[in-house]
Amino acid sequence: MNLILVTRIISFVMVIMGGFMLVPACIAFIYNEGSALHGFTISIVLIFIIAGTALFVFRKHRGRTLSARDGFLFVTLSWVCASLFGCLPYFISGAIPSFTNAFFETISGFSTTGASILENIEGLPKSMLFWRSLTHWLGGMGIVVLTVAILPLLGIGGMQLIKAEAPGPTVDKISPRITETAKILWLIYVGFTIAETALLMAGGMNLFDALTHTFGTLATGGFSTRNTSVAAYNSAYIDGVITVFMVLAGVNFTLHYRLLSGNVKSLMRDTELRTYIAIFIISSAVISISLYGSVYTTIGQCIRYASFQSASILTTTGFATADYEQWPFIAQSMIFILMFIGGCSGSTGGGIKVIRIITLFKQGFNEMKYLVHPRGVFTLRLSGNIIKKDIANAISGFFFLYILMLLVVTFIVAASGQDIITSLTTALATVGNIGPGFGKIGPTENFAFYSDSVKWVLSFAMLAGRLELYTVLVIITPTFWKK
Amino acid sequence: MNLILVTRIISFVMVIMGGFMLVPACIAFIYNEGSALHGFTISIVLIFIIAGTALFVFRKHRGRTLSARDGFLFVTLSWVCASLFGCLPYFISGAIPSFTNAFFETISGFSTTGASILENIEGLPKSMLFWRSLTHWLGGMGIVVLTVAILPLLGIGGMQLIKAEAPGPTVDKISPRITETAKILWLIYVGFTIAETALLMAGGMNLFDALTHTFGTLATGGFSTRNTSVAAYNSAYIDGVITVFMVLAGVNFTLHYRLLSGNVKSLMRDTELRTYIAIFIISSAVISISLYGSVYTTIGQCIRYASFQSASILTTTGFATADYEQWPFIAQSMIFILMFIGGCSGSTGGGIKVIRIITLFKQGFNEMKYLVHPRGVFTLRLSGNIIKKDIANAISGFFFLYILMLLVVTFIVAASGQDIITSLTTALATVGNIGPGFGKIGPTENFAFYSDSVKWVLSFAMLAGRLELYTVLVIITPTFWKK
Repeated sequence: MNLILVTRIISFVMVIMGGFMLVPACIAFIYNEGSALHGFTISIVLIFIIAGTALFVFRKHRGRTLSARDGFLFVTLSWVCASLFGCLPYFISGAIPSFTNAFFETISGFSTTGASILENIEGLPKSMLFWRSLTHWLGGMGIVVLTVAILPLLGIGGMQLIKAEAPGPTVDKISPRITETAKILWLIYVGFTIAETALLMAGGMNLFDALTHTFGTLATGGFSTRNTSVAAYNSAYIDGVITVFMVLAGVNFTLHYRLLSGNVKSLMRDTELRTYIAIFIISSAVISISLYGSVYTTIGQCIRYASFQSASILTTTGFATADYEQWPFIAQSMIFILMFIGGCSGSTGGGIKVIRIITLFKQGFNEMKYLVHPRGVFTLRLSGNIIKKDIANAISGFFFLYILMLLVVTFIVAASGQDIITSLTTALATVGNIGPGFGKIGPTENFAFYSDSVKWVLSFAMLAGRLELYTVLVIITPTFWKK
Repeated sequence: MNLILVTRIISFVMVIMGGFMLVPACIAFIYNEGSALHGFTISIVLIFIIAGTALFVFRKHRGRTLSARDGFLFVTLSWVCASLFGCLPYFISGAIPSFTNAFFETISGFSTTGASILENIEGLPKSMLFWRSLTHWLGGMGIVVLTVAILPLLGIGGMQLIKAEAPGPTVDKISPRITETAKILWLIYVGFTIAETALLMAGGMNLFDALTHTFGTLATGGFSTRNTSVAAYNSAYIDGVITVFMVLAGVNFTLHYRLLSGNVKSLMRDTELRTYIAIFIISSAVISISLYGSVYTTIGQCIRYASFQSASILTTTGFATADYEQWPFIAQSMIFILMFIGGCSGSTGGGIKVIRIITLFKQGFNEMKYLVHPRGVFTLRLSGNIIKKDIANAISGFFFLYILMLLVVTFIVAASGQDIITSLTTALATVGNIGPGFGKIGPTENFAFYSDSVKWVLSFAMLAGRLELYTVLVIITPTFWKK
């Protein structure tokens, strides 16, 4: 392993993060938020000193290539270090006095989960709220680059499937490819950010609110600056804009690139995209019908609230404009099922991912063909391409580990004294990076009541879920550390 | 397809079932239960006439071998026909006036689920209660023969794994093997029946109660003749006997054969058995600890109730001596997790089965080795034998379909107006052939309140779950019916 190079890259990532922290620091200065400014300043200085020292001490390193193992270590430690250093402003300024809470909120941000321990969001200084939303935006971008450019090379649970789809030249070494791909993806991401911010401002939001909610949307994060989330604006237009951008954020970003290159045809042929849109439409329709007459009186309202909540849970964003726990059980169960799906691969969305669900579905039904024709050969195909058996296996392995992880987290949460539905959906909401669930962590509630030890477990769950489980779990195996 | 032969075999199975119906008919006669006797007599006559006519009309058939497709059809239709004819006594006698309810109760019996629509069990005539428990016993035996002798040949979701373990000579054609295997398994099953009945009578039960509860235990069914299930006897001895026999019923019956042949060593090496016992001990221990002080005051009581309920849910029996919904949440979540596991392959237990969980676990962790050493070759092993890749794939396919089936049933039940936890555990309890769940279908409740349409869906779920999903689902695919 090239630990020195890994340390260097992580330090570099930390420096970039410290740089981004200058923005909320400026906001703190403008709005005259004394303790917040204090918190940001100390944090930035600390980050620069530590990362700078690391860069200086480890300035000499052999080789410029990272092995797969280095990759896993670099990716996991990036998110861990970003959360450790990123939570400093909250903690130092006293905005979030408990370190556990500050860390939980930060990893929830960087993992684009959106689960919050804040009981009064609006009580936080504006600069802190901005940083909170910015962690989403940075984490979301990190994930897109990661899943499109890095994970396929590492071979995680079916992520190879999006390898061929990545824009830019495909080369063997990671570095040039990442640079090229990352550049294009950043541009798309920034473009979406400008577009959504402008559209939200056109709907009457101020720049601050528009920007923070755009961060939460595009990262499929879900942190809002309002206690009642997006419901606070009570505007059909704003709900509509956010719904559309949540759906866009849940799409594989390489498809956005293809769309921009005018390659619309291949977009229409993409099975994952078509399935994702179909799931969104079906769940919105089912929920709309169930709400009509029972919760809302007009069809427009039904579609508005159903599509927002569907998009929010399917894409694992977690914004809320309605409390779905008050809805008919058929709508609730639809939301519950969406929690198992998640966004498309290569998007900022979490969860199992649509591409895996499709592969598992095809694999499951392929088995039936084998039962009827035991000597037949039935290949799995996705958007016209054959899915190799080892990739299908990797996806199956991922699916089982995902369900296992859910049950383990459910057990730990229940052991802390929570009922089954709260425990199970806490697991779904954290491992799937969604945010809200059912029971005590419904869309109008928060994670503040959990004990510190549970919060650390949930932090781990968010991290593992965000990094496709294997990236994190592989580091814990003894094989990983054998020479 | 050899539909004539399939019809003949099913008719033959019906005649056997009609023969078994003579026992409760005699009980009705002895206890002077007029309407019950009437119900049984008409049912038996009807079954003999219909099955006899079928046997006569289709007396000529070409070929004596069944294809895989014939096998699926025969197995599924056997359970369906048994439930259709088996529910007649309830319906004709008026003991269960609704046909839907009568069918539900019967398929719950034959599938060894134990979910009941009876609100006052003790109000039923003794002969009807006996028939109800007998459906368990017959269904349980059917399942053991099926999973040990037939399914491995059909190649269902990993059931090939127990192929090599089956007693008796392994031959290519189904018939001689079934005969040999079935004979040995019947003997073991009958032996266990006599043993448990005797032990229960030694504890003060009368023959009727001892026999019916033995049927419910060995089939891992769970129908009791008492409204409060086994709790009615309030005897530590009886609880203990039933716990032991539930655990035994959840073990692969070919292992019992090996034990009887004195082959204890190979028993100890069996990974599935060891894992199964470990799960039972761990869950009993966790639940015992959580109950100590909070629910029961002595360690003995804790172990007694924890081990009974653990065994009951793990083996998918569903007997109850305590209402686990009143237990601490850590115990509840343990019960909830057990619902996903089930018994061993080749036992009367339902659920996903321990052997599949082990394979999935190994497969999931194998993927991590591939991530670290992408060019390595890591074989899956179970009890020293290599698991072939196509078998591992079949198991993965099964697991996904199982989870999918759970979510579909959850959605349908929720759509009928039930909360998420009731809906989800109704799915788990029926697809997994367990019986009780959480919420409105807890261990002290029943399935009476569901609408007729939901009951038919749940009947399908019990059938599909019992026959390892694929046996039933494959029949619905168009491929199956293509020439």
